[in-house]
Amino acid sequence: MTGRSIAQDAELALLLEVTGTPKPGNVDRTHDHDDLRFEHFMAGAVGARPGLERAADGERVGRVFERAVAGMAQQSAGNTQFGALLLLAPLVAAAHDDALTPAGVDEVVKRTTVADAADFYRAFEHVDVAVDDPPSGLEPLDVRRGADAVPAIEERALTLCDVMDRSAEVDGVAAEWVGGFERVFGAAERIVDGDGPVPDRGAAVFLELLAGEPDTFVVKRSDRETAEMVQRRAQAVLDGEADAAELADELVDRGINPGTTADLVAGALFVALRRGVEV
Amino acid sequence: MTGRSIAQDAELALLLEVTGTPKPGNVDRTHDHDDLRFEHFMAGAVGARPGLERAADGERVGRVFERAVAGMAQQSAGNTQFGALLLLAPLVAAAHDDALTPAGVDEVVKRTTVADAADFYRAFEHVDVAVDDPPSGLEPLDVRRGADAVPAIEERALTLCDVMDRSAEVDGVAAEWVGGFERVFGAAERIVDGDGPVPDRGAAVFLELLAGEPDTFVVKRSDRETAEMVQRRAQAVLDGEADAAELADELVDRGINPGTTADLVAGALFVALRRGVEV
Repeated sequence: MTGRSIAQDAELALLLEVTGTPKPGNVDRTHDHDDLRFEHFMAGAVGARPGLERAADGERVGRVFERAVAGMAQQSAGNTQFGALLLLAPLVAAAHDDALTPAGVDEVVKRTTVADAADFYRAFEHVDVAVDDPPSGLEPLDVRRGADAVPAIEERALTLCDVMDRSAEVDGVAAEWVGGFERVFGAAERIVDGDGPVPDRGAAVFLELLAGEPDTFVVKRSDRETAEMVQRRAQAVLDGEADAAELADELVDRGINPGTTADLVAGALFVALRRGVEV
Repeated sequence: MTGRSIAQDAELALLLEVTGTPKPGNVDRTHDHDDLRFEHFMAGAVGARPGLERAADGERVGRVFERAVAGMAQQSAGNTQFGALLLLAPLVAAAHDDALTPAGVDEVVKRTTVADAADFYRAFEHVDVAVDDPPSGLEPLDVRRGADAVPAIEERALTLCDVMDRSAEVDGVAAEWVGGFERVFGAAERIVDGDGPVPDRGAAVFLELLAGEPDTFVVKRSDRETAEMVQRRAQAVLDGEADAAELADELVDRGINPGTTADLVAGALFVALRRGVEV
């Protein structure tokens, strides 16, 4: 068992995630994007930790998330780990409940309130996040409105679980929230059972997750066709028909960054660290 | 000014240090040693932070250092940042005094006590550190004795400043302690005045420091001849006669790791962050 606190393991998971190499399209040890570099992830992880630590005092999940995002944003590149923190906040809460299991984190999700939803909206004020336009008629709930949307949230009595449920079809992180964190726990198991340096195991599950489903961050920033292309190319790497490092170079050159898949890896690394994986 | 706490900036300095690439002979984004890899530095930095945070409550420097080392050691590679933490502990204390200057940190050093010296010896129990045999007659003060040496320290009424003074000739970190942290503050100034990504500035001052004096960690682990060879090779890179990346590959292949110079860079990055350098 780790001698680190729960929040320390969450921070370390963020650092190990970006350290895993190659992770095609993502920032890793050998790739930067022009405006998003390795050191921004270091500063994002260090900045996020005090927010995550609030969970030790029983702070609600939404507030833990919003404070972690505020700290993450204390670097010049903007959004580095928004989605990863949205996964880590309930996972950290479940760990404090001594129930870091699909059922345990489902309990955490189910007990979120309207206040958590309001926190979630406030988090968008700290950083620009790639999101689609809301469906017609739901403009009052556009997350880009930040705190201005809170009255509409309160009027509709939406909990954070409700908000996630409405995005689950188009957002891979929200899908985890309402699906028992199935992909996160599955990937964590493979990291625990894996061999070799922990970041290498993270990079391996990244490829598996990328080949498994279209990355929703790529869908939002580019389109579904691009996300499906990335998925097929990742499968080709797994099948031994393509080289991961070459795919990494190409995707970074094209500015295609499968960020949601990286978020899942961060969540999985956290669970694996709590399961006793040694760095 | 950073929105991070003093301890957060110290942790981030450790992370930015290892991120700077290339740093010939050191672990960096493109180099690992067989038994000492990038992720060990991530875990070392995360683990060290709670110890460093104790300085906010006025904890003495020796105890801050010993607790930081205990946390750093919560990974499988042993000594990652012992020397860097020995520099950071007084720098962090000076920052809390609102006096992060050569004079301010000198004040911190001068007020260390026998209790700080005992803490320093206890820190050696957490991790194996490369040290030379003590001079004849000083065996009772061998740091490798750890807590067993504390009675001898107390009998001689040695403060931590006294202990550092006795090592200043053979140890680059101890030399900083008794020399107003001259190389650290000089490097910090060049980082502040530099251009481009902060880790690149760290890598640049690493080369300058390496060319400036023989690395005492290399002297201890290899010999003075090797350390002087490394110094000359670093100067050749600065003179445009050799390539930093090639030198990095060669030194890592030969297992030559100028760790003391990396420690100085970590200290300098901390000072630069507190001076407002933005990541």
